[in-house]
Amino acid sequence: MSSTERDPDGQRGREPAGLLCPATAGTDAEAATDDRALLRALVAAEAALARAQGAPAEAADAIASAVDTLDVRELALAARAGGNPVIPLASALRAAVGGRWARYVHRGATSQDILDTALMLVAARTRRLVLGDLERASAALAPLAAEHRDTVMPGRTLTQHAVPTTFGLKAAGWRSLALDARDRLAAVVLPAQLGGAAGTLAALGDSPLATAAAYARELGLAEPGLPWHTLRTPVADLAAALAFTCGALGKTAVDVLTLCRTEVGEVAEGSGGGSSAMPHKANPVHATLIAAAARQAPAHLCVLFGAVPAEDERPAGAWHAEWAPLRELLRLAGGAAAHAAQLAEGLRVFPGRMAENLARTGGLIVSERFSVELGRAEAKRLIDQAAAADVTFAEAADTAGHGGLLAPAAWTGAAGALVDRALQRA
Amino acid sequence: MSSTERDPDGQRGREPAGLLCPATAGTDAEAATDDRALLRALVAAEAALARAQGAPAEAADAIASAVDTLDVRELALAARAGGNPVIPLASALRAAVGGRWARYVHRGATSQDILDTALMLVAARTRRLVLGDLERASAALAPLAAEHRDTVMPGRTLTQHAVPTTFGLKAAGWRSLALDARDRLAAVVLPAQLGGAAGTLAALGDSPLATAAAYARELGLAEPGLPWHTLRTPVADLAAALAFTCGALGKTAVDVLTLCRTEVGEVAEGSGGGSSAMPHKANPVHATLIAAAARQAPAHLCVLFGAVPAEDERPAGAWHAEWAPLRELLRLAGGAAAHAAQLAEGLRVFPGRMAENLARTGGLIVSERFSVELGRAEAKRLIDQAAAADVTFAEAADTAGHGGLLAPAAWTGAAGALVDRALQRA
Amino acid sequence: MSSTERDPDGQRGREPAGLLCPATAGTDAEAATDDRALLRALVAAEAALARAQGAPAEAADAIASAVDTLDVRELALAARAGGNPVIPLASALRAAVGGRWARYVHRGATSQDILDTALMLVAARTRRLVLGDLERASAALAPLAAEHRDTVMPGRTLTQHAVPTTFGLKAAGWRSLALDARDRLAAVVLPAQLGGAAGTLAALGDSPLATAAAYARELGLAEPGLPWHTLRTPVADLAAALAFTCGALGKTAVDVLTLCRTEVGEVAEGSGGGSSAMPHKANPVHATLIAAAARQAPAHLCVLFGAVPAEDERPAGAWHAEWAPLRELLRLAGGAAAHAAQLAEGLRVFPGRMAENLARTGGLIVSERFSVELGRAEAKRLIDQAAAADVTFAEAADTAGHGGLLAPAAWTGAAGALVDRALQRA
Amino acid sequence: MSSTERDPDGQRGREPAGLLCPATAGTDAEAATDDRALLRALVAAEAALARAQGAPAEAADAIASAVDTLDVRELALAARAGGNPVIPLASALRAAVGGRWARYVHRGATSQDILDTALMLVAARTRRLVLGDLERASAALAPLAAEHRDTVMPGRTLTQHAVPTTFGLKAAGWRSLALDARDRLAAVVLPAQLGGAAGTLAALGDSPLATAAAYARELGLAEPGLPWHTLRTPVADLAAALAFTCGALGKTAVDVLTLCRTEVGEVAEGSGGGSSAMPHKANPVHATLIAAAARQAPAHLCVLFGAVPAEDERPAGAWHAEWAPLRELLRLAGGAAAHAAQLAEGLRVFPGRMAENLARTGGLIVSERFSVELGRAEAKRLIDQAAAADVTFAEAADTAGHGGLLAPAAWTGAAGALVDRALQRA
Repeated sequence: MSSTERDPDGQRGREPAGLLCPATAGTDAEAATDDRALLRALVAAEAALARAQGAPAEAADAIASAVDTLDVRELALAARAGGNPVIPLASALRAAVGGRWARYVHRGATSQDILDTALMLVAARTRRLVLGDLERASAALAPLAAEHRDTVMPGRTLTQHAVPTTFGLKAAGWRSLALDARDRLAAVVLPAQLGGAAGTLAALGDSPLATAAAYARELGLAEPGLPWHTLRTPVADLAAALAFTCGALGKTAVDVLTLCRTEVGEVAEGSGGGSSAMPHKANPVHATLIAAAARQAPAHLCVLFGAVPAEDERPAGAWHAEWAPLRELLRLAGGAAAHAAQLAEGLRVFPGRMAENLARTGGLIVSERFSVELGRAEAKRLIDQAAAADVTFAEAADTAGHGGLLAPAAWTGAAGALVDRALQRA
Repeated sequence: MSSTERDPDGQRGREPAGLLCPATAGTDAEAATDDRALLRALVAAEAALARAQGAPAEAADAIASAVDTLDVRELALAARAGGNPVIPLASALRAAVGGRWARYVHRGATSQDILDTALMLVAARTRRLVLGDLERASAALAPLAAEHRDTVMPGRTLTQHAVPTTFGLKAAGWRSLALDARDRLAAVVLPAQLGGAAGTLAALGDSPLATAAAYARELGLAEPGLPWHTLRTPVADLAAALAFTCGALGKTAVDVLTLCRTEVGEVAEGSGGGSSAMPHKANPVHATLIAAAARQAPAHLCVLFGAVPAEDERPAGAWHAEWAPLRELLRLAGGAAAHAAQLAEGLRVFPGRMAENLARTGGLIVSERFSVELGRAEAKRLIDQAAAADVTFAEAADTAGHGGLLAPAAWTGAAGALVDRALQRA
Repeated sequence: MSSTERDPDGQRGREPAGLLCPATAGTDAEAATDDRALLRALVAAEAALARAQGAPAEAADAIASAVDTLDVRELALAARAGGNPVIPLASALRAAVGGRWARYVHRGATSQDILDTALMLVAARTRRLVLGDLERASAALAPLAAEHRDTVMPGRTLTQHAVPTTFGLKAAGWRSLALDARDRLAAVVLPAQLGGAAGTLAALGDSPLATAAAYARELGLAEPGLPWHTLRTPVADLAAALAFTCGALGKTAVDVLTLCRTEVGEVAEGSGGGSSAMPHKANPVHATLIAAAARQAPAHLCVLFGAVPAEDERPAGAWHAEWAPLRELLRLAGGAAAHAAQLAEGLRVFPGRMAENLARTGGLIVSERFSVELGRAEAKRLIDQAAAADVTFAEAADTAGHGGLLAPAAWTGAAGALVDRALQRA
Repeated sequence: MSSTERDPDGQRGREPAGLLCPATAGTDAEAATDDRALLRALVAAEAALARAQGAPAEAADAIASAVDTLDVRELALAARAGGNPVIPLASALRAAVGGRWARYVHRGATSQDILDTALMLVAARTRRLVLGDLERASAALAPLAAEHRDTVMPGRTLTQHAVPTTFGLKAAGWRSLALDARDRLAAVVLPAQLGGAAGTLAALGDSPLATAAAYARELGLAEPGLPWHTLRTPVADLAAALAFTCGALGKTAVDVLTLCRTEVGEVAEGSGGGSSAMPHKANPVHATLIAAAARQAPAHLCVLFGAVPAEDERPAGAWHAEWAPLRELLRLAGGAAAHAAQLAEGLRVFPGRMAENLARTGGLIVSERFSVELGRAEAKRLIDQAAAADVTFAEAADTAGHGGLLAPAAWTGAAGALVDRALQRA
């Protein structure tokens, strides 16, 4: 290790500064997924393996506490030779625990056992954070939906005003997606991995299946039916739930980005990002960062689903290609959920602007109602009449005695009932 | 419509010839997803809508039977003006059913109601086919796993022989992935879509929620909690299950592709694809086409997850971008599952070649056992000794009195027990 | 072939009806890429091969004209056995040309030679169409940029008004992207493929390199340095240029989608897509379909770049996975370019609305100018003063004697000069 | 900043330890792309901006040297408020240079000017590293191709032996892809970014275009035709070239992974990755890590091409979504190229194993030659005869007096000539 790589105070090798990751920098999800956290998880897996094999408690404890002596950067550099960090980790742990306990380190396991398990531990911890933020977002959206159950606003399709809807229905929809994400993420089974060199547990002693079960129990992870070195269902399930989370929150984000446009102005983030030169600007930073996460997540999912067809008992590349995208998905979901919670909690809603915008088409936003109640032909006639007389549709309708049909609030259909139904979901 | 676009015998506009789609050409999944099938589903949705709104049976029947009078190509070309096929379809249906029933056509609905619903109907039908083929594949793999529970073969990691495994364990793993795919696909909820112009059901009469429920019932689809025009959980769930299916079957494919290599020769497809010039060649066509599907599916998933953040009450682009990838995923999963069933049913296994390959490293494939039972140092000594004496490891071990440790079949760990456990899963 | 697969009038097997492809249905790019077009290209490659090998003109002509006797659906179904359509095509051609010329069919070639070459021919034809539409779009955008060189509108960043810009600069930017796409697409080298069974040209006679050169010449394709069965640079280059084209046009689309929002109203498509129930709606269909193409194209690119690492002399899956995405990219680019040309030619611009929108922030859109010319502190003071007095920034500025700084048209910087420079690019 | 976030010795905030990135950990590309390097580039852009605007040299120098006083982690955390790191950077620089020079900091620029420019600087530096390693790889492959110009080995298609080829042709193909990557990467134009708040350069003084030109010159970057805040051609071009580089090197990797399989054994990495428990194992680590990079790169490309349609003058999400994927692509290309150079320089080739493998089909590897020279019927007859007599094809051919056709080395076609031609490319 060259001098520039030394880290005299043992602080080196901390995870990214995060200059390019404003969505995750400083979040709990960042801390839960950084290399120190991964290293702790790797060592926890090694310690659990020793315990599951009936090693003396002292040996397992020695393994567990060796984590504080390890230099994560040194391990990362040593990982290059064999292509994964567990090979040098096992050596480092043996050296750390000393001759007496060395034989209990990594006994019967393969690198993938430890790394897959550690990633599941990291995933479990990050999932808790994401679930917490999804609950926060959902808890903030529920009263918004209730409060604005009947707040009328333009429904928009293909960028154009269509018919009225309510902000309550929109917020209820955002909440339902947050709950969908929560349900999918919570349902993912996170198993321990233990199979030995080729998934047969051959080197794991006389009762390998019992050992595997004990190992999973020790770690609070699920016991899989088969070692899953190349049966990657758990990774695919986790990845899908995380990417869906980003997408689901992304729906709220793109709606907020639309609704907060200067010309629309129906919502605003609690506190926008500033600009010194343009003091009027309050940028929708939360929504922007969530939207950015939602743009990246599907690509990581793509890599991870592409790695499901993993050849042999351990593939040459497909497994290695999973690590960075899986971690990045955990971070993106963590960042998106944290920002979504803040966004939902701080969102400001402007019913006045909604009313103003509803009026922009001169009554045409309820033209559907005229078609339904008076028939298409009559509706069309009124529209043509308005055009001919150079008045608004509302004026023409009023003149024709149909002014009573013009109130947007009277053409919101089942919006209220849908909000009520949606809010019953826990 | 120009003369070159005419189709005098009403046969025109059938779906792809399929020159570039050998995996799906001629399959039931192709037929279930082609434009005629989609058109039937679109019309079925329109008929169900009429029924759900209490239209006279005659009207609904007239709508349903109008499907045979429609020219799918003409609709496709007419779809360009508004950007989706339902706009011209509604006009064509009104014309087809005549003045008396025209008012029952597409009443209160929006294009997306009909198209989303039709795609869910197409998905439901294709899913049945895929599930059937997954069952076929699984049913063929179970006896393979049982028969070869103890058939020893080299376990391979990073392309190199590692330790022995069994073909039964490999086949059991393939089956477990097929079952994982089946379980995920079967669990996807496929809902009807009915929300009207902006998801409020405003134009759907006095009891719109009851109408929406009846509509779903008519079609055999689930009733969603909210209209999901821009709450795309159903599409994401379906896409993930389909892409996972392709990936899960892709694992079998890449293993077969490895194991059937000329130099490996441990398995072969029942009947390989021929070559006139090279009569010795029997190409693994099923595995190749499954692998090709598994390479494409994740990208479609990527588009569909990327469309979850759909702005407003109907997005300008995100929705339209879903159609082709969703259909293609249905086809890829359909094709992959059909080929996987054939592959599994016809697979030939060559235990003799497995035994031959096990011997290729001169005993080193069980070096792990020597490490475990004699200790690392002694194992290393034997290896060095063999190298020094220019004999195989097996010879050196035998000379040293450890020949009893050499049998690969005695170092397969829990492989048999794992097979037994895996085969208990129904 | 079952009776339902028969096609009595030889019209069957035409490409997709296109119900789900409004962007490409009926376009020249659809016709240039359908299975009939591909079949013609495949046969053209076979005929060129015969000519390049010095076959009698009669033989080559017989091969070429056999295309009209072939049933594309029958070939597609026959392609399943070997996994590609060239195997049955060669047989069908031999049968069609009869005993005398049969030996000149497919002589020395491998399936991939013919299919890769045919795809390059199809690409070459589609590229001409796309380039034509890019020129049309660019030709329509140039006068828009020139006419609106000084038409001031709000510059928007992160959805908020920032500082003024001009519509001319925006249009000049759109045009520069269309030209970037044109330049990249035009620069792609489309080579013929001829390598024989494993890329050595072993079965291609005594002067195989001369034959390969003649073959490329016959077809108007480039002669590659090496057979590229598994050196996929040409596919990657083509894919990148096509996907970039979709993305470049997508920029225009997303801007139009933003600017045509009901609340913004600064531009409109020449003729929007209608809605019978909501007669006021004019949907931005061109922009929507271009945006949808731009959402799909990157995923196809992902598959094609993922297929560059193609093992051996022909891979088992990577090659097969290219076909559908490559064709779809050609279609998406073709559809996007056709719609972009129409969009650009028909775009309506509303400077009045731009002026109206510029006023929405009460002068704050030029707050940057105040910071620059009066200093940040003074600008901030005026803003605070306006807030305190409950007047607009413009009013406060005017009162303070700085009204002369308020005109948006005087704070467009180099916009005009940039337009002039951009329009010099041919 | 909480106490746990403090970094007393100024070393904190260094980039990833890299536990999950064995392909890039410790490489020059890692150092060239980490947050410290990015920070240096950001500050270099700010200093160049000052110089280009004619600020006193002292001021520019003060800006440049302020880099050493900045805490990268602190900036990363501060970046969260506004969603990008330049906002806090400008403040920090103003504070660092003090009252006298503060007004020269970030004058007239927008955050995106500085960040885009800094990423181009980082790209330029990383590109140099990648190009160097591509040259190294190419320089190592050239003699391999020359030396093995006539070393015969099995050509393999769809995993099966097809006809003979030469290792020289294979190595020449690898080299040609490395050169293709080099040419594409070298051709990418990396421009500076300078447009001000909305791309009009309004706040950049009286001769903004001259300032922009000077700024680019200062930095050694290209001067763009237009500010490219939302004209993302440079990012797309760079991304395509980087992803292609990964894919091109991935071809070598997947070939090496195939050829080094235990059963094939035709090549080996110079020094494989070890395993303590299985001392016989020498894993192809370089090839594995390159293959893993090639699996990830296309997904990043997908995100970046998906960000080309960037709305307005700065998009809310599309721009932010570029940062991580672009940096990761630089790292993946850097890591892949470094490993490819080592792989090529150390590759061991085993012609003996190639000869052995050529014999595995009992002569059938040259069955094509029999078809060509004796006619298909006769070739087929010999094959059937061999089967009937239970002898190899070679034996049957020999018996029939055609033994002279059996030598694989005599059926390699133009392989040698192709190698010669390919090696002429510089």
